[in-house]
Amino acid sequence: MTDLKRRRFLKTAGIAGTAAAASTLAAPAIAQGSPEIRWRLTASWPKSLDTLYGGAENFAKYVSEATDGKFQIQSFAGGEIVPPLQATDAVINGTVEMCHTAQYYMWGKDPTWALGCAVPFGLNGRQQAAWWYEGGGEQLLNAFHAKSNVYSLLCGNTNAQMGGWFRKELNTLDDMKGVKMRIGGFAGAVMSKLGVIPQQIGGGDIYPALEKGTIDGAEWVGPYDDEKLGFYKVAKYYYYPGWWEGGAMLSLHVNKPKWDSLPKHYQAICKAAAAYANSVMSGRYEIQNPAAVKRLVAAGVQLRPFSEAILDACFKSANEVYAEISAKNEDFKKIWESMKAFRAESYLWQQLPDNTYDTYMMIQQRKNTL
Amino acid sequence: MTDLKRRRFLKTAGIAGTAAAASTLAAPAIAQGSPEIRWRLTASWPKSLDTLYGGAENFAKYVSEATDGKFQIQSFAGGEIVPPLQATDAVINGTVEMCHTAQYYMWGKDPTWALGCAVPFGLNGRQQAAWWYEGGGEQLLNAFHAKSNVYSLLCGNTNAQMGGWFRKELNTLDDMKGVKMRIGGFAGAVMSKLGVIPQQIGGGDIYPALEKGTIDGAEWVGPYDDEKLGFYKVAKYYYYPGWWEGGAMLSLHVNKPKWDSLPKHYQAICKAAAAYANSVMSGRYEIQNPAAVKRLVAAGVQLRPFSEAILDACFKSANEVYAEISAKNEDFKKIWESMKAFRAESYLWQQLPDNTYDTYMMIQQRKNTL
Repeated sequence: MTDLKRRRFLKTAGIAGTAAAASTLAAPAIAQGSPEIRWRLTASWPKSLDTLYGGAENFAKYVSEATDGKFQIQSFAGGEIVPPLQATDAVINGTVEMCHTAQYYMWGKDPTWALGCAVPFGLNGRQQAAWWYEGGGEQLLNAFHAKSNVYSLLCGNTNAQMGGWFRKELNTLDDMKGVKMRIGGFAGAVMSKLGVIPQQIGGGDIYPALEKGTIDGAEWVGPYDDEKLGFYKVAKYYYYPGWWEGGAMLSLHVNKPKWDSLPKHYQAICKAAAAYANSVMSGRYEIQNPAAVKRLVAAGVQLRPFSEAILDACFKSANEVYAEISAKNEDFKKIWESMKAFRAESYLWQQLPDNTYDTYMMIQQRKNTL
Repeated sequence: MTDLKRRRFLKTAGIAGTAAAASTLAAPAIAQGSPEIRWRLTASWPKSLDTLYGGAENFAKYVSEATDGKFQIQSFAGGEIVPPLQATDAVINGTVEMCHTAQYYMWGKDPTWALGCAVPFGLNGRQQAAWWYEGGGEQLLNAFHAKSNVYSLLCGNTNAQMGGWFRKELNTLDDMKGVKMRIGGFAGAVMSKLGVIPQQIGGGDIYPALEKGTIDGAEWVGPYDDEKLGFYKVAKYYYYPGWWEGGAMLSLHVNKPKWDSLPKHYQAICKAAAAYANSVMSGRYEIQNPAAVKRLVAAGVQLRPFSEAILDACFKSANEVYAEISAKNEDFKKIWESMKAFRAESYLWQQLPDNTYDTYMMIQQRKNTL
């Protein structure tokens, strides 16, 4: 047998072997090889928000590196292909293969989506990751998303957000009445029970609305992102905490038939790359927010905590909204009950070593001994 | 041109194209292909600790899945190849390609290693991940590890640990004097300044020592892991927080020449898989610890916080040890100063939305309204 003939024989034998394996194992990944794939990702963020947009970019970079450049995902900022809030729709209808977004932008279609991002008095960022990876969250949310032909991956977290920028102080519950605030979805519904008038305004339009006084307040994310949008120039009271986002998960949504068509090892790479990008985004916020909050305070920003009375009223109002939605939405009820059960367990546990450790360290920070 | 000829022509053209690319780009990963690789990993844990050992197993699983089974890493429990505390030595001397361990086990060789796991009054788990991924930690630690021919990856975190099990209450600083406690490394050095007599005892030997009264106390991890070792049966006071482990990073150590020999895309897969396994381990602790602490309390365990006076004395003592080591160890000083600067910044920031949100939620947990 010549060398060339031998090579052809081995190749044929190899193909035959693979075919035999395929007949006993359902679609083995090995039979699929490592194809060249090009996808497009539409993000809900402008490129200037390097924290959020970086989540999409890092994911794409890790996937490319892990596949030796064979699986390339090109990221587009919100508005380049479709508007920021229509990212998931573009995935569902197949305009793009995937997007990077906040699930609560889908609140209007079904409030269940909001559970995959942030809900009032929900889980904090650490709890959200635990619930997603080990608490059944990934499976519960994906069972719901499959109904829309979406496969989702956790990819980023802001951790607890600030409560937003206001042109005047909010000392009492009465001060909330009639306040026109840029706040959306679930939190807007809760706020409206307190007399706040929620306004839906895209990120880029908030600053002029605050400046002109068309609105009295606006929430966005936290110091590092908010500083870029300039709110501190026109509304100096910066409230905390954003009780509607004790943590906020960001997500990759993939068109499900497209996801199902990927070789199994590309799916595995996507899962690992999403987890990596998830941790890097949290880290970037953690590193960038302290410096940003110091710059804002130096620029005259006044930090204000929401009073316990205001938080209590919001908590009560939120529980009413949870009950109302749960009474008429089985998907929401099922997933919220899983989160809620874990929330109670976890906040018992976090009072022990975590909270006592952090409290002691915060006392030292205030004493300037760190 | 026949079909067969055309295919041969395309194939040749493809190879020529790759060779041309290779001459302009330094050692492109594509030239390395996807070889079959078999490695061994020795862990510092028994298989019964599914949290810690699960970190190694999940990493290996994700790598296998992402390489379509081509890169296989077989995990061994502590003691199967080398004893638990000699895992890193086995990597350095090439007995195994990699290990999964806690870097502070290398404290005796150089205290700088401890910074890659946990140090008294150091960063909490969330801060550790941020410092590693976005705060320069990965680069600083790897520059140090390279001196020992080790490449390291963050792969797991316990978050804040408990302060350990004691046969009697520790109400005052005087109660600490003469207490024989199983506690190692850095924390042991800090404790000894308070009159505690630190004991080095392997995990499996703690229970009989506590039972016989050879020691008065012992620290391990937290409720879920500690419960498995049965300490609650022989020492009923369970203290918190473990101020020497406000977070504890677990690491993968790879023999550096072996790491450098991997195709670039296998390295990328290892990095993403480690980040994935890192998040899953934290999640598993978060899910499992609440139920474990409830079982322990039901079994008669008495939870006790360390008093602020005891914590203050430990903090002072720890700062003395930091100064002593920094005065004679440049590597330690450089890395600790990076962590320390971030610690002060981050504990300023975490007092705002994160701490106020969590505090409000913990109040609700105590009111039983969650």
